[in-house]
Amino acid sequence: MQTLQVDLGERSYPIYIGADLLGRAECIVPHLAGRQVAIVTNETVAPLYLDKLARALSGCDLTPIVLPDGEAFKSWETLQKIFDGLLEARHDRRTTLIALGGGVIGDMAGFAAACYQRGVDFIQIPTTLLSQVDSSVGGKTGINHPLGKNMIGAFYQPKAVVIDTATLATLPARELSAGLAEVIKYGLICDEPFLGWLEAHMEALRALDAAALTEAIARSCAAKAQVVGADERETGVRATLNLGHTFGHAIETHMGYGSWLHGEAVAAGTVMALEMSRRLGWIDEAGRNRGIRLLQRAGLPVEPPAEMTADDFLRHMAVDKKVLGGQLRLVLLKRLGEAVVTGDFPREALQATLDTDYRMLMEQTSH
Amino acid sequence: MQTLQVDLGERSYPIYIGADLLGRAECIVPHLAGRQVAIVTNETVAPLYLDKLARALSGCDLTPIVLPDGEAFKSWETLQKIFDGLLEARHDRRTTLIALGGGVIGDMAGFAAACYQRGVDFIQIPTTLLSQVDSSVGGKTGINHPLGKNMIGAFYQPKAVVIDTATLATLPARELSAGLAEVIKYGLICDEPFLGWLEAHMEALRALDAAALTEAIARSCAAKAQVVGADERETGVRATLNLGHTFGHAIETHMGYGSWLHGEAVAAGTVMALEMSRRLGWIDEAGRNRGIRLLQRAGLPVEPPAEMTADDFLRHMAVDKKVLGGQLRLVLLKRLGEAVVTGDFPREALQATLDTDYRMLMEQTSH
Repeated sequence: MQTLQVDLGERSYPIYIGADLLGRAECIVPHLAGRQVAIVTNETVAPLYLDKLARALSGCDLTPIVLPDGEAFKSWETLQKIFDGLLEARHDRRTTLIALGGGVIGDMAGFAAACYQRGVDFIQIPTTLLSQVDSSVGGKTGINHPLGKNMIGAFYQPKAVVIDTATLATLPARELSAGLAEVIKYGLICDEPFLGWLEAHMEALRALDAAALTEAIARSCAAKAQVVGADERETGVRATLNLGHTFGHAIETHMGYGSWLHGEAVAAGTVMALEMSRRLGWIDEAGRNRGIRLLQRAGLPVEPPAEMTADDFLRHMAVDKKVLGGQLRLVLLKRLGEAVVTGDFPREALQATLDTDYRMLMEQTSH
Repeated sequence: MQTLQVDLGERSYPIYIGADLLGRAECIVPHLAGRQVAIVTNETVAPLYLDKLARALSGCDLTPIVLPDGEAFKSWETLQKIFDGLLEARHDRRTTLIALGGGVIGDMAGFAAACYQRGVDFIQIPTTLLSQVDSSVGGKTGINHPLGKNMIGAFYQPKAVVIDTATLATLPARELSAGLAEVIKYGLICDEPFLGWLEAHMEALRALDAAALTEAIARSCAAKAQVVGADERETGVRATLNLGHTFGHAIETHMGYGSWLHGEAVAAGTVMALEMSRRLGWIDEAGRNRGIRLLQRAGLPVEPPAEMTADDFLRHMAVDKKVLGGQLRLVLLKRLGEAVVTGDFPREALQATLDTDYRMLMEQTSH
């Protein structure tokens, strides 16, 4: 088991990473506020892991809250089911919510914990690669609004993050790839040597090699923990974690939540950010292509949906949370391993990036 | 104009109290985060004060968001209208929400500010006595759930509280009385001399004497600011501000939000807390009756609804936010001017308090 620490003063917390941690009470019980525990999970994860977790918490008053599965349910209506479950079982201020599932479950359970009786404790037990390397760490919680993703939420830190790599054995290959999009992101934004490691271990990761997974997750979480520790509320460097996300959110919103996985949209969005960084002369064609190939080898889409026009992108991107004073800001690469958040780019560069024929670009890069 | 300060480190903020502050830009504009401002108000208050406030903020990009009026609308559905308004007008993270209205507006606008894009700034401009002396100060925000009042919310502090006493001229007498319930509360829990002042000035207050109102509001806000500064997240002394509220919330929940005003339910609940404190031998009959008479002179109900049984109270009180480990805790008076939060009382004392015939008690005390 590897243990990392997110340093946030009195809100610091540990991240445990290893195989079969789900059944180990000693990783979880010391972080409970009291006897009451609500396990928030979904219909896909519950049959796989709920019993195992419940056995590890046998001394607690457990309330399982099982939600429908999918980004489409990351809504107020579903959140309300968590509050219903807590109130019907009379959970008080000393309850602890445990998020058992992917990013949607973690974001909703965390936001529910932030709001229930104005704030109760919660623990993240992410069961997808995407949530293990990204959303479970850092305290961003929330739900979607019909007019924008993650528009309603809170910065609210968990008391612990327990990452059981064994849960990836039941993860569909498509979702494993989606998680790899965020892993590759850390290399692109702040850890160029990690890109080399990923190039050497991509097959091992996709084959669920335990040692490779633990290393990739730990390295990703360490990068995330460092960025979050430096900028919890995203007033600066934290926004670089959103490489590819502004384009990606536009894809998700336009296509309807759930048709593209978040990681898939981020992958296509990352290609657009790479292309725009190249157009600005910050990275060269070889650098751009290196990023694209790594995403392709991870099994990810590297082209935005053919049906989306530049205007579609601009319309959705105008409500991005990084917009300030009406100005769109994007995460772009100064070089491989160094990202910036900037609104200081020629409008034409953005337009050209949106107008690029990515299908043709991929044909060119594959030669 | 009087200025008080709520001391909460980097989250400290001023409270301005005086006549006609609503039109004074210098009280408001320095506390805005940027040019975008959303004024959250309701259908009753908007025709009275929205234009005046808008004129004071003429240099801003204003989005008025006008909600239906009443506690029954303190719900997710109404909160959603705030998010809709913000997103449709493309408000970004540098927006400022201004709550213009009573406690329901302040609680909802504050909670919307806490959640919108994971947190934006807000300013309280309370227009009812109740919100001026209580809910606008201290950062408690939230909405109701069908199973309990204020169950969903956040601790989220405003950047400033602007109290314009002139707005009380349009307040219905019944709502003025409801506000006086909370004013009297401060005397009972922490300021015994204030009870004497209130006994001397009750007629002046009900006649809207400007000097008397300013004094009562400032003294109430000073008490609240001190308690909040000592215990922002209600781990201790802050809970004493809920004198009468556990009984009162049960009345509100049972009768349906809106049929009893919050201050009216608190008044009847305060009588029950006084009676229970007497039964425990902490205050005497004269002290209890002194509190009751002051509430009566403020024009407030002093008896719980005849239709509510002891079991009704116990059922609703079991989901109170002060319940910990299954144990009900109540705010009671050790003496006039000193409150405690305690679960350490004989169950029989609570049962006897709930079984008391308050109609008969009032007949006795009026002799």
